[in-house]
Amino acid sequence: MIIYRELVDKILANDKRSISRAISLVENEEAGSTDLLKLLFKFTGKAYRIGITGPPGAGKSTITNCLIKLLSDNGFNIGVIAVDPTSPFTGGALLGDRVRMADSGMLERVFIRSMATRGSLGGLCSNIVEASDIFDASGKDFILIETVGVGQSELDIAQTADTTIVVLVPESGDSVQAMKAGLMEIADIFVINKSDRAGADLFISTLKNILNLRAPDNAHFNAEVLKTIATKNEGIDLLLREILQHKKHLISSGEFSINRKEHLKRKIIDLVNTRLYIDFWKEQKLTNLEENLDSIYNKSTDPFSFIEKLLMS
Amino acid sequence: MIIYRELVDKILANDKRSISRAISLVENEEAGSTDLLKLLFKFTGKAYRIGITGPPGAGKSTITNCLIKLLSDNGFNIGVIAVDPTSPFTGGALLGDRVRMADSGMLERVFIRSMATRGSLGGLCSNIVEASDIFDASGKDFILIETVGVGQSELDIAQTADTTIVVLVPESGDSVQAMKAGLMEIADIFVINKSDRAGADLFISTLKNILNLRAPDNAHFNAEVLKTIATKNEGIDLLLREILQHKKHLISSGEFSINRKEHLKRKIIDLVNTRLYIDFWKEQKLTNLEENLDSIYNKSTDPFSFIEKLLMS
Repeated sequence: MIIYRELVDKILANDKRSISRAISLVENEEAGSTDLLKLLFKFTGKAYRIGITGPPGAGKSTITNCLIKLLSDNGFNIGVIAVDPTSPFTGGALLGDRVRMADSGMLERVFIRSMATRGSLGGLCSNIVEASDIFDASGKDFILIETVGVGQSELDIAQTADTTIVVLVPESGDSVQAMKAGLMEIADIFVINKSDRAGADLFISTLKNILNLRAPDNAHFNAEVLKTIATKNEGIDLLLREILQHKKHLISSGEFSINRKEHLKRKIIDLVNTRLYIDFWKEQKLTNLEENLDSIYNKSTDPFSFIEKLLMS
Repeated sequence: MIIYRELVDKILANDKRSISRAISLVENEEAGSTDLLKLLFKFTGKAYRIGITGPPGAGKSTITNCLIKLLSDNGFNIGVIAVDPTSPFTGGALLGDRVRMADSGMLERVFIRSMATRGSLGGLCSNIVEASDIFDASGKDFILIETVGVGQSELDIAQTADTTIVVLVPESGDSVQAMKAGLMEIADIFVINKSDRAGADLFISTLKNILNLRAPDNAHFNAEVLKTIATKNEGIDLLLREILQHKKHLISSGEFSINRKEHLKRKIIDLVNTRLYIDFWKEQKLTNLEENLDSIYNKSTDPFSFIEKLLMS
């Protein structure tokens, strides 16, 4: 525990190496990382968390980079978590973009961290939330979490962000169709990037129609739809204004603390559920399952009867 | 239990209304649906399960429809599970396509069932597996499971399909980049649909390069890459031949039963984990959490200490 108290002090002092080390500890779920998070918890809660998600190729990274620059120019401390699918296709290019834009002032105020997505069959808890907590404790004003809107990661965002931005392009019609379930529900702000492309206005009016069709009791009924051309840095100031507007609305309406308590509750439930199955699936139970798998496969028994016995044992 | 025995008999006799009723029972997780699955279990295992997934707009439905027709023309009984994202965009069109292609012979041999995806924060178990089991027990030769390759559903497919087909289009470069983690790993066969479009050959050679770069111990190292133009029914016969080739390979190599046992194991683990948290989160525990949420939010205690106490209580 002593080593963690020292690490905590350095994180609170915004020491980059210690922040980095702490994130690695939680990312790799190393023994004792829970102790660290326990010590850090009371220093969390001050940073404003912004999630940025959307389909591949929509320009999430460019928008994130524009926001980083704008926030940094205004003197804010920023932590960025870029969730990198562990793909053979990606990696280098993205990192290159990041590095190029870092001038000396920004180097001081901006901390960018890539995190891998979990494996396909990964656990219930996401380490994105834990990494955000570490950034938060270190005194960041804003935490930007950028993740591609496929798979589990969009849900992870919704479980930690105060404002969630969904980035689409005029050609996203098809994608929206399929991704809707996840993306539509979590959006506080829609950004239509590359809005100088053909079909932008048509897409925006379609999107607005759909948003209007939804029941007025839906929390995101009033989600704003904004246009940007991130490669030209156009519309980013409006986007930031909209984010701050949303923040103001959350606080004045009381939704801010309601949402954060909901996130906390969800996190506790996930942590408990993970503990439940880690505690259950000890060596002996797994061996029991392995030993009986053939007889279930051969229909000598059925999975449901086996499970009853396993839960009793 | 008596009512279920009757239902089981009718399902085994391939009675459509009973199959439909049974799927509704498991879809809605109605009381007693476990008893039904328990009774059905020993009649499962004979149908060959084919998963069809890929990004939105790739032509999955058209390919599925072509395969249905081809299999039906060969006299096979086919169950189809179409996983419909519960989107405001989709619904009608898809169902229309399905209905139009059903001639009288097919009406006899083909059973198509749409299932909604789970809510964003849904449970661990998928009902796709359960619906497949019901089709299986009813004597289907093939079960086709079509689902869009985003979110949890692609993993659900990998947990039940014997052969998984990933459908892409020449423009899928960007999508592959982001979706890879899931899609690349689960593919037994890649179908490049709309292969008369520009860039098809370049995309295929890029894809093949990536597949070759992967370690030879990867189970899907030899995933085939096929071209189709589904709207013209081109390449579908080759696709079916490849599916049957893959089936033959699985059986002769012993992978068939290894994979099925792995699916069974995964299913048992998921069912147990769901039971664990359902059993844990009784009224009293949830109340305890609700009552303590404010004091955790206000940092009077931390989530980790609270969880320890909750697990003890």
